Amino acid sequence: MVEWGNKFSARVSSLKASAIRELLSLVNDPEIISLAGGMPDPSLFPKEIIADISKEVFLNNASKALQYGATEGVPPLRESLLKMTREEAVKEVELENIIVTTASQQGLSLLAEIFINPGDSVIVEAPSYVGGLQAFHAFQANFTTIPLDDEGIKVDILEEKLKELKANNINVKFIYVIPNFQNPAGVTMSLERRKKLLEISHFYGIPIIEDDPYGDIRFKGEKIPSLLELDKIGIVIELRTFSKILAPGLRLGWIVADKEVTKKVSLAKQAADLCSPSSTQYIVDKFIRDGHLNNYLEIVRKNYKIKLDSMLGALEKYFPEETTWTEPQGGMFVWAEVPEYVDTDQLFREALQEKVAYVIGSAFYPYGEDKHHMRLNFSLNTPEKIEEGIKRLGNLLKKKIH
Amino acid sequence: MVEWGNKFSARVSSLKASAIRELLSLVNDPEIISLAGGMPDPSLFPKEIIADISKEVFLNNASKALQYGATEGVPPLRESLLKMTREEAVKEVELENIIVTTASQQGLSLLAEIFINPGDSVIVEAPSYVGGLQAFHAFQANFTTIPLDDEGIKVDILEEKLKELKANNINVKFIYVIPNFQNPAGVTMSLERRKKLLEISHFYGIPIIEDDPYGDIRFKGEKIPSLLELDKIGIVIELRTFSKILAPGLRLGWIVADKEVTKKVSLAKQAADLCSPSSTQYIVDKFIRDGHLNNYLEIVRKNYKIKLDSMLGALEKYFPEETTWTEPQGGMFVWAEVPEYVDTDQLFREALQEKVAYVIGSAFYPYGEDKHHMRLNFSLNTPEKIEEGIKRLGNLLKKKIH
Repeated sequence: MVEWGNKFSARVSSLKASAIRELLSLVNDPEIISLAGGMPDPSLFPKEIIADISKEVFLNNASKALQYGATEGVPPLRESLLKMTREEAVKEVELENIIVTTASQQGLSLLAEIFINPGDSVIVEAPSYVGGLQAFHAFQANFTTIPLDDEGIKVDILEEKLKELKANNINVKFIYVIPNFQNPAGVTMSLERRKKLLEISHFYGIPIIEDDPYGDIRFKGEKIPSLLELDKIGIVIELRTFSKILAPGLRLGWIVADKEVTKKVSLAKQAADLCSPSSTQYIVDKFIRDGHLNNYLEIVRKNYKIKLDSMLGALEKYFPEETTWTEPQGGMFVWAEVPEYVDTDQLFREALQEKVAYVIGSAFYPYGEDKHHMRLNFSLNTPEKIEEGIKRLGNLLKKKIH
Repeated sequence: MVEWGNKFSARVSSLKASAIRELLSLVNDPEIISLAGGMPDPSLFPKEIIADISKEVFLNNASKALQYGATEGVPPLRESLLKMTREEAVKEVELENIIVTTASQQGLSLLAEIFINPGDSVIVEAPSYVGGLQAFHAFQANFTTIPLDDEGIKVDILEEKLKELKANNINVKFIYVIPNFQNPAGVTMSLERRKKLLEISHFYGIPIIEDDPYGDIRFKGEKIPSLLELDKIGIVIELRTFSKILAPGLRLGWIVADKEVTKKVSLAKQAADLCSPSSTQYIVDKFIRDGHLNNYLEIVRKNYKIKLDSMLGALEKYFPEETTWTEPQGGMFVWAEVPEYVDTDQLFREALQEKVAYVIGSAFYPYGEDKHHMRLNFSLNTPEKIEEGIKRLGNLLKKKIH
């Protein structure tokens, strides 16, 4: 009876439901093998340890763990994060450079809030993380996309675009990249590209948002220094999360950035949710202090490597030779490319009939401009199910290839 | 080395640090009795029960409690909230009318996001909750304030203002009220006022945001039906939270509203933090299902009543007769008024020297336009400390009265 349509804000029209989400709501059939989500394997969750720690935290520290905490995060967890950051070779970091967020989706949203005026330009990789695109959409950003190859963002194209934008007096608010095992593409930015990206960022004075949810889940190759570590002037804002390296249901992440940035993020966070859960912050802090994080990461890496190998083997075996795919050294995703005449948006419903699901490539482009990719997740299912899922998808694809 | 000043968004300038927060950062001295915060008494937290429940949840349900959950909330908790809402006499509510939020500060922020364009007008009570003002500030609202008396918002003045705004073609996005034991004023909106407020809202087609964190903490007088319950057309949006009725460190609240509103809130929430913590949602759900909530509320009510009585007795005994104060029937706050020539902003630092703290009245006005009130919290301290705190404050005030 109430006419809501004319009451909502203009920005609500930019709020689109995630295509992933809409499509996943179709995946109810338990016979469907879903290679679609981006979830960690719940069978690996260290549930006994978390159960014991949580009991101890609530018994011995309830007056803090159940109370409001500081907006920037509870002090012991921030100190643990500071220690972790320093151990990762970013030496010059202080407590004021670190702020805890309600997982890194909130980090993305708060950064969008403090940087983006309606219509402001931001640069993203193509393809890029759906949640990042959504957060920037919600604050009415204009997107400029820069393609990726196996070495990450194509810095030569980035440089050309920036010249063009500058010539048109268009101010770019930030460059958003996922350097390690990119979501969805699975590729990792090379050291050379990282250095060049920083050089460009410094030259134009454009901040870089380095989203690194998967960096600790490397199971092949050598670690490459982060942009945060390589940067010497504080222009890199790094987003981290416990969602992939521990458990998403705790909703905890953190930002490492220049103090001026964390100060603004903190102001925005006060209005957004006052503070992240003290309860899960104390649980995670004890998990780290008791030395469980590295053990758990070892288990995850070993396990995901087996799953990835199963997926790559199955792709080799069952996918038609007209298709290609990335070979990630970590993370959760493989990005497969099909011939241009196959539309992966359309194929999705047929795949469901074959009892297999993936994420349509177009979801990872701000304007949905690509329809011949699919994102394939290897973290959730068993190696056997992964093989079976890829087989079903491969057989379907073979019917489409001419 | 990076010039951040020119990179931030325009809305960042509306983001002001909460005056409360800034002032509280001065309260480090453990000898200071703080009547300032808005925290529940941590000594009452049901820590043994939460400890046992959390252990059980993580052991038996880790694959859900540690995983991503639905943006609207995990299904069992939403069902528990639906049941609670129906038991509170709002019969016609469905699951789709309920969405879980990362405590009600997030509810306020998401509602601001979906309703407010920069410069849009909103109506708030004067005084009003700081966190509400901050959330609306962050989305660049213009504030129209309506004074309160002992029966709540002055509906006659509201009506006049709305006529005036309409004559000037100013569209009002919503009316924000805290009907029960208002923060900071402690007053409760009478049934008559609630009915009149709804009539006005229906006539002008302006949504009401009913913020009700304290309704369940009534320890005197009779419950008055909520605006949500009285409304017949779905124009009321109710915000609730577990922060005051259980524990803020779990960061859980919920919104009850028209489906069109919860749908938009859900879209905004996807971009803001994807979902609230599954972990604390399953813990709270089990706490409710095992029947602990009412027991706990009984303890809280009994305890807070003793504290309030201590505060009211001490006010009577120690405050100069030129001062007045409200007598709440529940909640956490008393609102004291001093003569106009006493500036409570200025008095704050003197109070700290006398080892007592309160919140300055001006913090509760969008433009800081009142300087002769103080908010006094009675939930946190023991009755003895409350009496001593009021004594210190009363003695200070007596020196200022002429």
